[in-house]
Amino acid sequence: MSTYFVIAAAAVSLLMALGLYCKNAAIRVEDARMKEIAGYIHSGAMAYLKRQYLVMAIFAAVMFVVLLLLLGLNTALCFLVGALFSMLAGFCGMMSATLSNVRTAQSAKKGMPAALNVAFSGGAVLGLCVVGLGALGLAVLYLVFNGNNDILTGFSLGASSIALFARVGGGIYTKAADVGADLVGKVEAGIPEDDPRNPAVIGDNVGDNVGDVAGMGADLFESYVGAILSALLLAAGNAERIHLTFSLVALGIAAAILGILIVKTVKGRDPQKILTAGSYLSAIVLIAGALVFCRQAEGGMHLFGCILSGVAVGVAIGVITEIYTSDRYHFVKHIAAQSETGTATNILSGYAVGLRSTALPILLIAAAVVLSAKLAGLFGVALAAVGMLSTVGITVSVDAYGPVADNAGGIAQMSGMPEEIRSITDNLDSVGNTTAAIGKGFSIGSAALTALALFNSYAEKIQLKTINILDSHVIAGIFVGGMLTFLFCALTTESVSRAAQKMIAEVRRQFKADPGILAGTSTPDYARCVDISTRAALREMILPGIIAIAAPLATGLFVGPDALAGLLVGGTVVGVPMAIMLSNAGGAWDNAKKDLETGKPGGKGSEAHTAAVTGDTVGDPFKDTSGPALNILIQLMSIVALVFVPLFL
Amino acid sequence: MSTYFVIAAAAVSLLMALGLYCKNAAIRVEDARMKEIAGYIHSGAMAYLKRQYLVMAIFAAVMFVVLLLLLGLNTALCFLVGALFSMLAGFCGMMSATLSNVRTAQSAKKGMPAALNVAFSGGAVLGLCVVGLGALGLAVLYLVFNGNNDILTGFSLGASSIALFARVGGGIYTKAADVGADLVGKVEAGIPEDDPRNPAVIGDNVGDNVGDVAGMGADLFESYVGAILSALLLAAGNAERIHLTFSLVALGIAAAILGILIVKTVKGRDPQKILTAGSYLSAIVLIAGALVFCRQAEGGMHLFGCILSGVAVGVAIGVITEIYTSDRYHFVKHIAAQSETGTATNILSGYAVGLRSTALPILLIAAAVVLSAKLAGLFGVALAAVGMLSTVGITVSVDAYGPVADNAGGIAQMSGMPEEIRSITDNLDSVGNTTAAIGKGFSIGSAALTALALFNSYAEKIQLKTINILDSHVIAGIFVGGMLTFLFCALTTESVSRAAQKMIAEVRRQFKADPGILAGTSTPDYARCVDISTRAALREMILPGIIAIAAPLATGLFVGPDALAGLLVGGTVVGVPMAIMLSNAGGAWDNAKKDLETGKPGGKGSEAHTAAVTGDTVGDPFKDTSGPALNILIQLMSIVALVFVPLFL
Repeated sequence: MSTYFVIAAAAVSLLMALGLYCKNAAIRVEDARMKEIAGYIHSGAMAYLKRQYLVMAIFAAVMFVVLLLLLGLNTALCFLVGALFSMLAGFCGMMSATLSNVRTAQSAKKGMPAALNVAFSGGAVLGLCVVGLGALGLAVLYLVFNGNNDILTGFSLGASSIALFARVGGGIYTKAADVGADLVGKVEAGIPEDDPRNPAVIGDNVGDNVGDVAGMGADLFESYVGAILSALLLAAGNAERIHLTFSLVALGIAAAILGILIVKTVKGRDPQKILTAGSYLSAIVLIAGALVFCRQAEGGMHLFGCILSGVAVGVAIGVITEIYTSDRYHFVKHIAAQSETGTATNILSGYAVGLRSTALPILLIAAAVVLSAKLAGLFGVALAAVGMLSTVGITVSVDAYGPVADNAGGIAQMSGMPEEIRSITDNLDSVGNTTAAIGKGFSIGSAALTALALFNSYAEKIQLKTINILDSHVIAGIFVGGMLTFLFCALTTESVSRAAQKMIAEVRRQFKADPGILAGTSTPDYARCVDISTRAALREMILPGIIAIAAPLATGLFVGPDALAGLLVGGTVVGVPMAIMLSNAGGAWDNAKKDLETGKPGGKGSEAHTAAVTGDTVGDPFKDTSGPALNILIQLMSIVALVFVPLFL
Repeated sequence: MSTYFVIAAAAVSLLMALGLYCKNAAIRVEDARMKEIAGYIHSGAMAYLKRQYLVMAIFAAVMFVVLLLLLGLNTALCFLVGALFSMLAGFCGMMSATLSNVRTAQSAKKGMPAALNVAFSGGAVLGLCVVGLGALGLAVLYLVFNGNNDILTGFSLGASSIALFARVGGGIYTKAADVGADLVGKVEAGIPEDDPRNPAVIGDNVGDNVGDVAGMGADLFESYVGAILSALLLAAGNAERIHLTFSLVALGIAAAILGILIVKTVKGRDPQKILTAGSYLSAIVLIAGALVFCRQAEGGMHLFGCILSGVAVGVAIGVITEIYTSDRYHFVKHIAAQSETGTATNILSGYAVGLRSTALPILLIAAAVVLSAKLAGLFGVALAAVGMLSTVGITVSVDAYGPVADNAGGIAQMSGMPEEIRSITDNLDSVGNTTAAIGKGFSIGSAALTALALFNSYAEKIQLKTINILDSHVIAGIFVGGMLTFLFCALTTESVSRAAQKMIAEVRRQFKADPGILAGTSTPDYARCVDISTRAALREMILPGIIAIAAPLATGLFVGPDALAGLLVGGTVVGVPMAIMLSNAGGAWDNAKKDLETGKPGGKGSEAHTAAVTGDTVGDPFKDTSGPALNILIQLMSIVALVFVPLFL
């Protein structure tokens, strides 16, 4: 019964996405220069997606055959649907974002509220598609396969595989373009950010969409699907628990839609407050609804406790992330102050803030795990993850609003809009930076709980009642799993460096070949820079991708299921603090730089600012490539283990 | 029987230390300026030790009372002896190092072999004292308490507590002085390194001794004692295994003494090769001897396999560390090349090298754990740790040679020695950098195995047959333990920053108050800078120290022994790769800077060199404060858990 509610809620969600898209599409862009620049970004984004989808199609075809041979047709089909739905959600999100960016800049002429509305709608399309397609896929397949959840793991594997491509590839793409554009443009040629004379500038703007729209959407699609799936698996045939899980999913979609509507109707001065209000309202509606549902179930208040702990941890991690990464608090101001003694002290203080910022989120996650396990066993942990992720529709909407606003700022700058319009887009952009940092914190927290829930599902399915750390295979597995996250970070960081060096060479070549570019008389070859980022992203993704899939498979096959359990735990316990550190250090460096730009001790061009710009550049791959890539790694390894259990037995 | 061999070997070792010390002391220093500078360093080091020993005495008194009340007189007494012996080893090492540094510079007048001989003897005093006092203490107390190993844990706790003070305090001291001296001296005032006009320069030279002599010695004293103790505990009353453990200890001391003699007699052009030859010879002697012993024992070849795996992993980690941190290999050259596009790419590439360098050591440690557990169960893992650490006498000697050579270079520079002498001391110093990096790799590897062995002893003593990861307390404990290592790194990094800022303020103040200092006409107030570092080190140590002791105690008491087991595992699996990364990234940055100074692409003063200097400054607290501090954290938490088991039951 509750599956039909889910299907209905998902349908409403998708229809609403369509409505928002059409409404934004109907806004006419008048300025020709704006249109031209937006056209470059849109076609750059589509060129990237086209190439990426080709690679994904080949990968999906190979995996389909492998799954077909090893695990049968049904699992292979579910995998295909999962991959397809994730790609579809990303595609819709990208279409919407690259349509809405220029229309946000256009609407800024009518004032801040109009621009916020357009930008948020642009992001909400992704949010609604992620939950709509994720929930729809799971519910329909659940009905089709009569509740055989083992087959459903294929859907989750499909989602995770696409997330690997979208998040890792996207992260490399966006930072290669960003770092490349900054190092030659800002540092060597001395032209400002978002200057149309910089050949890499379109690549940089495309990158915002590729990383923060398609990548982030696929990441949370993976977590959302993984959490729900593991709850269904750990419900272990208990009809009431399955019913509760699906009810919670439907309720979460409804709460998210309500939150989105609130953001779109409330008018106010402070965009940050409006976005936060929408998110909090969704959480409150969810909790209230969950309370009603749980009261009817047996042991319902215990289950409610699990849901509440998941929601509370998600909200708390967001608040903590803001404290460590926003320039309204002590930590970022401290980094800004430390920049005055040079780059070394800026780097050290930012790194220390990142390290320190892991403490509270990890304590909260640990507390949620202990509490929910005490209340409802392994199912409780999965339920906490579902609780945390059920309102992800609004989380993704707020998150995807960021790159739309960022792009709008870039387009306003490049098309030479008047100062008052740019101040509106700049304001929206800076709010977007904070929401992006909070969104990243949330992604990691949810990835942690989802990975644990998937890990528990793996243990349940392979019938390991105890996984004993005193067993040398297990402890060795934990060590190796932890090491893999370090290796993964090394590989992705090096990828960004390599790709950025190629970008730097190309930008230098263009400046040299045609002096008219810097003079502003000829148009640079944007497409070539977009192409360099695209090729680099797809090539550099291969090795990390192979590791993420092959390591759990090889461990399970050649060492044993207990060593594999260790590997998954090691990856999670090392990957989660590492991802939090990378993401928060990067965010804090970014905002310390912004803080110094407001001019208090030095302003732009001061030595402290130069140090802070370096810190920000170091932080770029931290927060946008390696950090988010770890979310994928830990979840993907768990789902690979879970799907291939039949081979390890 | 074998305990008497240990006592005899330890006595020989201590006598040899005395002999080497007296021989070095007999060398006359002729140059008055050399004498003066060496006097500043010596009295600075003694001032630090005096203050530190006072703090340690108070701490030891409090702990003595606590142990007396909770665990009885015998454990409390063992604790006192352990603390005292560790302090004594550190004191002898410091006396020797601050005596030998100036005599190395003096002997450089006779050529490289003479200088190497003096510097190495200066370091060997520490190496011989560490193994002599460690083995003597354990063997005598074993006899006194009739093999009651539970009481002996007190000795290990004493060693670990002192290591915390020496390593964490020493690490903060040395880097506060170093970073402070560099940032004002090199960057602001534009005077070279080791310039006597810099008020912090003596503090910096004292710091080399405080961190790399006293700190490193206490660190390996802790590992050495911890490994032997856990082997005795896990032998579980099996007389043959206890006999083998003590035989191995005695054999290791003999092998180390042989290695030291070889280094002192072989003459050659390349100091690096001579030092390596001594270490390898010790390892070969140990393996050959162990083979003979093991053939007599039941299942001896299995036990021999454990010992061999420990020794092999120790040697291999040294080689791997060198590959990642020496400028003769690709990685450091890559960082140097990346410095040409600025500081950001230098930082990112160094960080990536550090991350990547964790892969092989962790795989080796994991393999050694699996192999030795397969061969001889939990005792096998402890035996592998003992095998790795048994020849630590020569390892510490080679390691402590580094700061002696470094100081000798500083003294030669400051007293204006002629170019040919400084080229000898510079050569010895650069060899010392490599041996220091290798020594750090070895410390981490041995800390990892020792922490695991102590963890296994804890589980055995508290009679946990299984520690189940599926238990939410265990997984939460693992998460929190991992997080603690991040927090520990944050705290120690921040401590260095804070202390360095104080040092910077003081140096600036002195330059301003007396312009004669920079002109070279008046002597700066060195003592005041030494005092700032001393006070800062002792104050900043308190919080990390409390965490390291209180976290396992509180977890064991208030959450439970299984959560504490998780905490220990989490600390180890996160702390080990983190420590490897910090140490190797720091070493690689340091050598990338040195590589650029040889002038290939830019030379000193080029933009690439400036970027590399910043990388080196970032790496300083990585490799000399936070990284080594993690060795202490993971071992100290394990020994605290082990000692206080009676309270958790």
